[in-house]
Amino acid sequence: MSKTVKFLPDNATITVDDGENLLAAAAKAGVYIHAFCGGDGVCGKCKVKIKEGEVLSSKAQHLKQEEYDQGVRLACQASIQSDLVVEVPEAISKDGRALKRKPKTTRAISARSLDALIGKWDVSPPVEKRFVKIDPPSLEDNVPDLQRLLRAIKGGCFECKEPTYDHPEMLQELPFTLREANWEVTVLMLRGKRKREPDRIIAVEPGDTTGRLYGLAVDIGTTTVSGILMDLNSGEVLAEYSSYNGQIRYGEDVISRIIYSQRPGGLKNLQDKVVHTINEIIHSVCKKMVISPSDISYIMAAGNTVMSHLLLGIDPKYIREAPYVPACSQFPLTRAASLGVMAHPSVRLFLYPSIASYVGGDIVAGVHAFQMHKSSAYTLFIDIGTNGEIVVGNKDWMMCTACSAGPAFEGGGVKFGMRASSGAIESFHIHPITYDPMIVTIDRTKPRGICGSGLISIVSELLEAGVIDQQGKFNAKIDHPRIREGQDGYEYVLAWAKDSLIGEDIVITEVDIENLVRAKGAMYAGYQTLLNAVGMTFVDLDRIVLAGNFGAYIDLERAISIGLLPDVDRDKFYYLGNGSLLGAQISLDDHKRFRERGEVSKLITNMELSDNPDFMSHYMAALFLPHTDLSLFPTMRDKFAELAKGDGG
Amino acid sequence: MSKTVKFLPDNATITVDDGENLLAAAAKAGVYIHAFCGGDGVCGKCKVKIKEGEVLSSKAQHLKQEEYDQGVRLACQASIQSDLVVEVPEAISKDGRALKRKPKTTRAISARSLDALIGKWDVSPPVEKRFVKIDPPSLEDNVPDLQRLLRAIKGGCFECKEPTYDHPEMLQELPFTLREANWEVTVLMLRGKRKREPDRIIAVEPGDTTGRLYGLAVDIGTTTVSGILMDLNSGEVLAEYSSYNGQIRYGEDVISRIIYSQRPGGLKNLQDKVVHTINEIIHSVCKKMVISPSDISYIMAAGNTVMSHLLLGIDPKYIREAPYVPACSQFPLTRAASLGVMAHPSVRLFLYPSIASYVGGDIVAGVHAFQMHKSSAYTLFIDIGTNGEIVVGNKDWMMCTACSAGPAFEGGGVKFGMRASSGAIESFHIHPITYDPMIVTIDRTKPRGICGSGLISIVSELLEAGVIDQQGKFNAKIDHPRIREGQDGYEYVLAWAKDSLIGEDIVITEVDIENLVRAKGAMYAGYQTLLNAVGMTFVDLDRIVLAGNFGAYIDLERAISIGLLPDVDRDKFYYLGNGSLLGAQISLDDHKRFRERGEVSKLITNMELSDNPDFMSHYMAALFLPHTDLSLFPTMRDKFAELAKGDGG
Repeated sequence: MSKTVKFLPDNATITVDDGENLLAAAAKAGVYIHAFCGGDGVCGKCKVKIKEGEVLSSKAQHLKQEEYDQGVRLACQASIQSDLVVEVPEAISKDGRALKRKPKTTRAISARSLDALIGKWDVSPPVEKRFVKIDPPSLEDNVPDLQRLLRAIKGGCFECKEPTYDHPEMLQELPFTLREANWEVTVLMLRGKRKREPDRIIAVEPGDTTGRLYGLAVDIGTTTVSGILMDLNSGEVLAEYSSYNGQIRYGEDVISRIIYSQRPGGLKNLQDKVVHTINEIIHSVCKKMVISPSDISYIMAAGNTVMSHLLLGIDPKYIREAPYVPACSQFPLTRAASLGVMAHPSVRLFLYPSIASYVGGDIVAGVHAFQMHKSSAYTLFIDIGTNGEIVVGNKDWMMCTACSAGPAFEGGGVKFGMRASSGAIESFHIHPITYDPMIVTIDRTKPRGICGSGLISIVSELLEAGVIDQQGKFNAKIDHPRIREGQDGYEYVLAWAKDSLIGEDIVITEVDIENLVRAKGAMYAGYQTLLNAVGMTFVDLDRIVLAGNFGAYIDLERAISIGLLPDVDRDKFYYLGNGSLLGAQISLDDHKRFRERGEVSKLITNMELSDNPDFMSHYMAALFLPHTDLSLFPTMRDKFAELAKGDGG
Repeated sequence: MSKTVKFLPDNATITVDDGENLLAAAAKAGVYIHAFCGGDGVCGKCKVKIKEGEVLSSKAQHLKQEEYDQGVRLACQASIQSDLVVEVPEAISKDGRALKRKPKTTRAISARSLDALIGKWDVSPPVEKRFVKIDPPSLEDNVPDLQRLLRAIKGGCFECKEPTYDHPEMLQELPFTLREANWEVTVLMLRGKRKREPDRIIAVEPGDTTGRLYGLAVDIGTTTVSGILMDLNSGEVLAEYSSYNGQIRYGEDVISRIIYSQRPGGLKNLQDKVVHTINEIIHSVCKKMVISPSDISYIMAAGNTVMSHLLLGIDPKYIREAPYVPACSQFPLTRAASLGVMAHPSVRLFLYPSIASYVGGDIVAGVHAFQMHKSSAYTLFIDIGTNGEIVVGNKDWMMCTACSAGPAFEGGGVKFGMRASSGAIESFHIHPITYDPMIVTIDRTKPRGICGSGLISIVSELLEAGVIDQQGKFNAKIDHPRIREGQDGYEYVLAWAKDSLIGEDIVITEVDIENLVRAKGAMYAGYQTLLNAVGMTFVDLDRIVLAGNFGAYIDLERAISIGLLPDVDRDKFYYLGNGSLLGAQISLDDHKRFRERGEVSKLITNMELSDNPDFMSHYMAALFLPHTDLSLFPTMRDKFAELAKGDGG
């Protein structure tokens, strides 16, 4: 059930889920409310008056009884229970005058979901269980156990060819399993990799276990590993779990992992760590559903090229050295148990194929998930991260590239940067006159730092408020306690020490902003170079699809305002979420889609940006907020014009 | 160079190899010479006079100078150097009279070799080495290492499909191998198992190693394991080696091995032992040719069903229990190293498929070797041993069975029985009047015991001389120191203690003879039952092919005279030798022949003899020498008639 909230005096209206936090709703609506402590309820700044409707709220310690009776609440402590009309008090200037501010013209816009485009898929997984009753042997008919079994299942297997079988595990157990089960067994079969290849018996279980057929989809991210347990009979998602990639202690990005892998024992250690993380996921989802890990019949995984190499124990050394050659791009079907994964010895783990050293299986899985390779719509597919991956094309051809954006989007290279976890500032507004902040953190605790989406939010607001200029430099003319000179040059105090969880001022510095500018500049230059290479411009695109966790949380308007995304029709933007996990999940369910993955990866051609002069010139031009060429960003051009008018008036 | 030897006064003539031992030549020719010590030169009985030609001889201690000057030599110490005319002295009776004996009508006849029928095969093995030069990567062309390699070999592989590859070994090494080798490598490829299956890269070696392509053919016998090292480029046999199967300490026959395998750790121990034996062979042949075991690119093996199970570590338990069901009959292609075989980790070991619990891959390999499945000639294929295996049929159909003959042919269940090794009596003649023996041992040492072919020789001679009757009972009327009553009833002294290596009398007893009669009876009843089942008799057969080491050494005439082989035209008999090893060798050389093996095993239908009433009645009738029905053995019927006449005359 969704609720509508109208904020006065701006008349900004937003529709949110039942129970949504009121401060977060205001932030999404682009409505500024003083909020210094991230939503923790301690600064007591975010007072609003509920004019109509109901909220549930706690922590009234900052409110007088009189205020409370009048309907005043701390927005950060209020949970929306009905449609609301909320009055936001105007800021009071030092001289006691209410500071009227212009209503915001924009609010947080998320890209549209791709649900409809992903479409339906079949529940017809790459593994099948079949219950067979076998004639017990006699002197007249004493063909061997294996041949009896093959005879019993023949004519009924996937492609009507005699299946092969796993040796030695299946074969060594077979005589005992058949007799213990009184010749009634369930055969677990794996479809041939290609259409012509025979199916393969990978396990024989006593009795009828056809009701228990589970699969695991895994996205192996450099930072986070996520898994989904699927019921492969129904296609239903049973449980999900995510965990930090256990390799993270050896470096935050793929380059530092490659460097670590070159130490003695390093490769093995990295492999062990990611396997341990996968086991943690298996343990968690199996415990939740009260099933045994050995009931999982197939594991479908996707990860970037380095993660894929490390999982399989293949040395990624040459990925890092020009000309950036991975050991392979099509990864072999592997026995999960042989890697140390907690699974039945016969269970296979499949990894999505990669395209190149820096365009991995996660990207192929994403492209595959939303069927970009089957659509005639020209699509720009973007995965924003430390390594930004970009694919352009449609069903006829696709071209991809990767650009090294640096770690700013993940909170790296930013003084108070952090990953998107509890206490990270994820949303920021600035009062255009008082320059005071409205900060909202993940989980609404006191702020600990700034995550990627928060950084975009902060820089975009500072830019639009004129606190920083297009080069990302602070306007030294503004006299405000929060704008000061720090160790790294000018900085803006997002949270005073008393309002922060870490007991010190949390600031954003000019150096932080420079890093973000470089990161977004690399992404934008990547789009331009790739589009140029195929003779297209942004206007030729029918869709822009954002993937990655970042894609889901990004505020479209703000991302455009800093020049991270192109300034085109907002309706062209879609977000896919974790395309890598979704691709793995679909391939787990539907073997026909699964088999397509070869097509997908073969349709995509890689282009190297390293030493590409076109890229370098685009990049230099993009080291501006949003860009040196404002004609590319008409929305911002208009805003700057407005700002200039305001200054002048 | 062969030499012709004429023995006087019989005028028996034989052609033998240059350097052949004169006593052995006489034995083959059926010429009786006193010889009590097996050919060791100590009894001094085997004096002969060289009338024409040259011999080389040593140990003249038993000869007077006068004798020597007249050309008298010990036959056992004489090596034939030219065509000879040799006078054999007649035996002297107690009263000093020369005992004229009738010349022998038969001499040792070996079955003919099958060389012509086996035909030529191609040298086109299931593995191939290909030297490829790969374009080094550049920024313009940085496809992954594996794809570069595939691209370089594409269009040239066996079946023109993209090969698959070994994971993880090949893949993990690939980036380093390619760079260390400066992008010039040799690819070892394995042909797809079936015609449609893609070839598989199993190893990549730096530089050009195409000149080094070796294969190993192995026959895994219950008693002996034999191996042949082949140059797969030329098809040449480079080295051979045989060794006792290391499992032999746990039982002489397959049944005792199965029993041992059921002990804790027994299966693993038996697997280890046979693997150790194979390693011993690999070590020996590689040392001889100064190559590394890792240069062997393929191993092709054949063994009976129990040996095959044990090698692969598959429990043979149910093979022993009615209804005698093996775990499988088509054995999977296995990595040799995974079994513990000393080989490159990627090298595959292939086992010939079995037909049933007691008709194994050794028989299929034999049938395959001489292309029985392609000939229209009706063939009876016999492998004589503890377990006798019999196949009848031609290219249109084949039927097989196994009969448990017991260990008599291997020297088991015989008081002084032993395997065919140094000191075993392998040939025996008896003087028809003096009843003194002529014994020839393997390596012509003093006798240690009796091997299978010796036993047949002895029983046949005793029978034809009337020393034993058709029931195998001694003729108590003969008064001779060598014929006496011992612990196990009557016995014949083959060698007195002074002439034996073991320092005690070596005898053959009635119990020994009973065991042989049961063994040959089981074989003969097997032929009859199988032929009856397909509506045939012996006269319908175009060929009788003998396999096994035993087959090569068997004296055809004597085997017929005891009823082990049917009394048909001697020209129909062929011997294949070690058909199992030959089949493995051919399959190693020629992948087209290799691929046929499926056809072969599918053409052969198994028939169980256990509890078969037809078999039981044939068996009872065959417990006679040669048979209760003498019309089946006209040669012996005539000999008995002759003997009776002699007695009467």
